[in-house]
Amino acid sequence: MGTRGLDGTASTSPPPYHELHAEQRYRVFADLDRIAGRFPFATWRSPSGPREVIIWCSNDYLGMGQHPKVIEAMIDTARRHGTGAGGTRNISGTNHPLVELEAELADLHGKDAALVFTSGYVSNQTGISTIAKLIPDCLILSDALNHNSMIEGIRQSGMERQIFRHNDVRHLEELLKAVAFERPKLIVLESLYSMDGDIAPIHCICELAERYGAMTYLDEVHAVGMYGLRGGGVAERDGAMERIDVIEGTLAKAFGCLGGYIVGNSDLIDAVRSYAPGFIFTTALPPPICAAATAAIRHLKTSQSERQSHQDRVRRVKAELNSARLPVMPSDSHIVPVWVGDPAKCKAASNILLAEYGIYIQPINYPTVAKGTERLRITPSPCHDDIMISQLVAALSDVWNRLGLPYANTAQAAE
Amino acid sequence: MGTRGLDGTASTSPPPYHELHAEQRYRVFADLDRIAGRFPFATWRSPSGPREVIIWCSNDYLGMGQHPKVIEAMIDTARRHGTGAGGTRNISGTNHPLVELEAELADLHGKDAALVFTSGYVSNQTGISTIAKLIPDCLILSDALNHNSMIEGIRQSGMERQIFRHNDVRHLEELLKAVAFERPKLIVLESLYSMDGDIAPIHCICELAERYGAMTYLDEVHAVGMYGLRGGGVAERDGAMERIDVIEGTLAKAFGCLGGYIVGNSDLIDAVRSYAPGFIFTTALPPPICAAATAAIRHLKTSQSERQSHQDRVRRVKAELNSARLPVMPSDSHIVPVWVGDPAKCKAASNILLAEYGIYIQPINYPTVAKGTERLRITPSPCHDDIMISQLVAALSDVWNRLGLPYANTAQAAE
Repeated sequence: MGTRGLDGTASTSPPPYHELHAEQRYRVFADLDRIAGRFPFATWRSPSGPREVIIWCSNDYLGMGQHPKVIEAMIDTARRHGTGAGGTRNISGTNHPLVELEAELADLHGKDAALVFTSGYVSNQTGISTIAKLIPDCLILSDALNHNSMIEGIRQSGMERQIFRHNDVRHLEELLKAVAFERPKLIVLESLYSMDGDIAPIHCICELAERYGAMTYLDEVHAVGMYGLRGGGVAERDGAMERIDVIEGTLAKAFGCLGGYIVGNSDLIDAVRSYAPGFIFTTALPPPICAAATAAIRHLKTSQSERQSHQDRVRRVKAELNSARLPVMPSDSHIVPVWVGDPAKCKAASNILLAEYGIYIQPINYPTVAKGTERLRITPSPCHDDIMISQLVAALSDVWNRLGLPYANTAQAAE
Repeated sequence: MGTRGLDGTASTSPPPYHELHAEQRYRVFADLDRIAGRFPFATWRSPSGPREVIIWCSNDYLGMGQHPKVIEAMIDTARRHGTGAGGTRNISGTNHPLVELEAELADLHGKDAALVFTSGYVSNQTGISTIAKLIPDCLILSDALNHNSMIEGIRQSGMERQIFRHNDVRHLEELLKAVAFERPKLIVLESLYSMDGDIAPIHCICELAERYGAMTYLDEVHAVGMYGLRGGGVAERDGAMERIDVIEGTLAKAFGCLGGYIVGNSDLIDAVRSYAPGFIFTTALPPPICAAATAAIRHLKTSQSERQSHQDRVRRVKAELNSARLPVMPSDSHIVPVWVGDPAKCKAASNILLAEYGIYIQPINYPTVAKGTERLRITPSPCHDDIMISQLVAALSDVWNRLGLPYANTAQAAE
């Protein structure tokens, strides 16, 4: 049946995704080899052959994926224990580097216990759905801009949910007020929203949770490693960790590896461990990945230099973009979105930057952001130096002129 | 709210999983460090300190997780490109080892294209749900013993589904006959069912698919690397690969790493790539994992020795267990389930084997298998030698006597 189309008929008709092209959201993946020891440089295998480029949109925010301690931990563990875990957590797959990693994560967030999943996506999807299902008649209150993995987790729980306007504490309170105090509630939110770079009012939300008897589930994937004195995230920075019931994080961004996790009290973690299908029925994370992640977490628990240098680079990028009147969207964090507001121009801008300047910034179009809010999303790292920043701003200014894109004082984003 | 229980009240009441203990399915994970170069030996961190044990239930079926080529590929790639991918596939995470891996997988199965996911679980979950959703009015026909990841994928598609009795071609035909020919249908099955070790009648099912106008989706996770002249799985062995529309596999079992994939025609793969949330919104597989998996696949495309030795070991284990009248369940494959039929005794048998004999075989209880069909599931590898096999059989015989477990001619399984 190999010739059968996706419409289920034996034809050569194209699959039903014409609109992907029409809406400028058909994606072409750039084939990139990052160069360890020389981040943010990478080799781009362009249609005309390999070229060296600078990556300006990585989520390996601190460059820990190339840190010698992290690489050596992976190498040493691969030599000692091999490449894979060889089984699910229950059937021969639990390995000591994974046990150590979970202890490290529980300590990082000051919680009883941690549970590691194959990805942050899976953590949210199977974590939220399992927690919500275990709470009889649970009402889920979810921030309007929560990530797809959280939305899928909520949907799969099958529990009732209400959406509160993004970071809108008043709206959340209205919703909470309207529910009986006795009814179990779970507030689901992110600490740092990755496409806008804004930060949730965590203490205010905890205040409401306590007042109205709700549990809290906080996604910190874009904050762990980068905020707080030990890299515990925005909740650590704000002194709010202990007010949160469940914190979810990733090993694949600031910790430079792969995998996701949740932390919380022992009973809760044990229940998720025992019931979550996306945890039970899947192979455990490889020992070399676990050891590498642990090395990154341990390093960032004591070292401040990566975080300081990261924030310094972010300030400089924002300042130079602002000087050039490029429309930086308001952001409280290390994420620097620059407003475009048109999917075709966003893609064109990205293409020119890559082809002519060797600068790689992926366009952020629908469905990752709402239509009409297309942007370039820049993520400076400690590895981006002053010269790279100047070149970036000059390249963007050229692109802005050539494509007739809006400058700061006329841009919607600056309103 | 850290003191709040899972029932949503601020109490210290235990979470609702008492039945886990009552049903002997509360799981305690053994903390194991496999020893590269000495598989199947591992260091078990027992409550009384580290002990060397032999693992008899690994899904690293061929021991490729310790193959020097595979370990060196991981190490070399970590040194050159770092530990993590640093982004989603679309946003700076596509790396050349991943592109090469997908080409290798498409070639392995003789298909146009491949798509790699973070796990086999995710491949099925987001793959099946996306494919089914893209086919208007699709009816899914699913084998009764399909894996949890496939069931979740089917459920999430929201499409109508019908279950056919396990490997029952007549029942499948009855169901197909009752549907209009024009209606799109997707038959979802596994080639090799991991808890029983039996194999699907792939050609007969393809026959029906062609006669009644259905697409086919085949999970080969327990077969890739191990069956077929190049390790393409049971469908390769049976000469049926080209009759299947979508083949799904894993990199985490016989290929010794982590991750999953689907292969199929270009349009289908491109559509899943463009629409599957579990693919789009998650970090790409790390370059060192991709390179290690590619090394394993390439090796097993030409080397027959691992497969031959694997089957030889399996034959010997089955023969010796049969000689000792231990109740080996009928199995067409490398999976050797031994009937217990009682959850408490299954757990007790596993405990004695580990504590007294240093033999690690996890009990397989509900929900992994149906209640009343509890078993020990033995997976011999090329690394298990004759002496280990004799010791295994002697240990099992002792356990069978002490626990009063049924021998072959009285066991239900042998009927």
